[in-house]
Amino acid sequence: MTTPPHDEAGPTANPDQQSREEDLVERVLKSFDSCADPRLGQLMTGLVRHLHTYIREVRLTEEEWRRAIDFLTRCGHITDDRRQEFILLSDVLGASMQTIAVNNTAYGDATEATVFGPFFVDGSPEVRLGGDIAGGAAGEPCWVEGTVADTDGKPLPGARIEVWEADDDGLYDVQYDDERTAARAHFHTDDEGRYRFWAITPTPYPIPHDGPVGEMLHAVGRSPMRASHLHFMVSHPAGRTLVTHIFVRGDELLHSDTVFGVKESLVKDFDRQLAGTATPDGRAVDGTWSKVRFDIVLAPARTVPVV
Amino acid sequence: MTTPPHDEAGPTANPDQQSREEDLVERVLKSFDSCADPRLGQLMTGLVRHLHTYIREVRLTEEEWRRAIDFLTRCGHITDDRRQEFILLSDVLGASMQTIAVNNTAYGDATEATVFGPFFVDGSPEVRLGGDIAGGAAGEPCWVEGTVADTDGKPLPGARIEVWEADDDGLYDVQYDDERTAARAHFHTDDEGRYRFWAITPTPYPIPHDGPVGEMLHAVGRSPMRASHLHFMVSHPAGRTLVTHIFVRGDELLHSDTVFGVKESLVKDFDRQLAGTATPDGRAVDGTWSKVRFDIVLAPARTVPVV
Repeated sequence: MTTPPHDEAGPTANPDQQSREEDLVERVLKSFDSCADPRLGQLMTGLVRHLHTYIREVRLTEEEWRRAIDFLTRCGHITDDRRQEFILLSDVLGASMQTIAVNNTAYGDATEATVFGPFFVDGSPEVRLGGDIAGGAAGEPCWVEGTVADTDGKPLPGARIEVWEADDDGLYDVQYDDERTAARAHFHTDDEGRYRFWAITPTPYPIPHDGPVGEMLHAVGRSPMRASHLHFMVSHPAGRTLVTHIFVRGDELLHSDTVFGVKESLVKDFDRQLAGTATPDGRAVDGTWSKVRFDIVLAPARTVPVV
Repeated sequence: MTTPPHDEAGPTANPDQQSREEDLVERVLKSFDSCADPRLGQLMTGLVRHLHTYIREVRLTEEEWRRAIDFLTRCGHITDDRRQEFILLSDVLGASMQTIAVNNTAYGDATEATVFGPFFVDGSPEVRLGGDIAGGAAGEPCWVEGTVADTDGKPLPGARIEVWEADDDGLYDVQYDDERTAARAHFHTDDEGRYRFWAITPTPYPIPHDGPVGEMLHAVGRSPMRASHLHFMVSHPAGRTLVTHIFVRGDELLHSDTVFGVKESLVKDFDRQLAGTATPDGRAVDGTWSKVRFDIVLAPARTVPVV
């Protein structure tokens, strides 16, 4: 795909036409002159400028405009408490990851952030450290352990860790037909900033692709598959809240994750264990299992943005 | 409102941060490389470029991203068969008018186009020439007459004219609580390309502003009012289909129409007639009435785009 050079003037060379198009942009921008909130004014006028430049640059047809309206309408109608098509859309366009990039500037060796995704749910059950978050979700057991510290290496006790993941069929609990909670929980680090829990080994899955976003991916020849991952959200008063995943080293989807979430620093070794290998906590596991270590470093709560 | 200069690089001066942001844009663009439809590829990559430049330029915060997702979700949920919030959004951002500008390039003295709006409904009743389209809608009677011709001045018999408008309370029939059809109809020009009908004198009204688009207008200090107008859609095999309005000369909202639809050539004299003045067709009118002439010129069906 060639990327045409960016041109504010749009591709029309007819000066009258160009001036009609530019006059309209100016009139729309001017309509925000009375906005009392400078930031909102900046967001809206920036949106107007880019939206109009886009329409002029691609010479959007009226039929294409109608299809865009229809697309957004269908995204709205498929969205409910358990399905968020607009987040999927933002994710597959890389807009979610760009927002994360802009807001989570590098800070020392702080752990990198990645996409939140549409599957987090407030009010997950609390499990004890070392407990099992699977809640009956199908999958190979996976022991996860690590620490939470600040960028000076000081452990952060009492950090709240939310974890959530898809089951072996590629489904999160919110995609089940019943109201069950599974493969989602929260817990707190111990006095030395450590945590540990049983989960299930992450496997690849497609984002929900039976809606308009899936149709779009299909039309442009893109796969809906996500690289295998386990979601984390880590918060502590002393640190910047971290939303991230860990990915599975060796997963062939690492370079084609459909939401552009993979960062090299988040790819971890999930060590496969033969059936019968002793588990860290003495739990009897029937079959193979895996283990992974993820040491988390939180940036300071008030990071001066890098500009 | 100041318009910051457009800068593809975004406002970050930190080279590592800049390169992370740019790498992401490149990865997203590359994901469309397998798109078999070149036009779709152009539309999607253009969208990605502008969306990412916007996020980087305004340094969109995660909270602002969440509010945008929530805004789109609420637009989707308020939209149904009779309410189209995404069209309203496109209209108040001037995107609808820019799309019309791009597609309806000037051609000789062809009548100018303006916004379609969200209130057109397929299947309007046909009225005879000279008939009344009001269908019981409240308002001052208004006699409308004119011709439809091509750019050579040749009359176009049998042109289909759809007309629709709001009533005196500012409501279209689709906004009524019942299923009534009112102030909307279609008819065809006679053998000499002429048309005539009774309507109601247009009055100003607000676009539906009890939803997210209305909240946005309120937040930025913009009025939801539209200048008074009467909608036309005119089609004939020999011409480019024209979607337009006529506006009322003297209306104080002509310069602040919230969807940027007003064009000087579409402002017409609605001549006010005293009660008792004889009507063109001898109809007995109880009180004042108005009359307006609108001669329509259709561009050729296959207009070479002005580029």
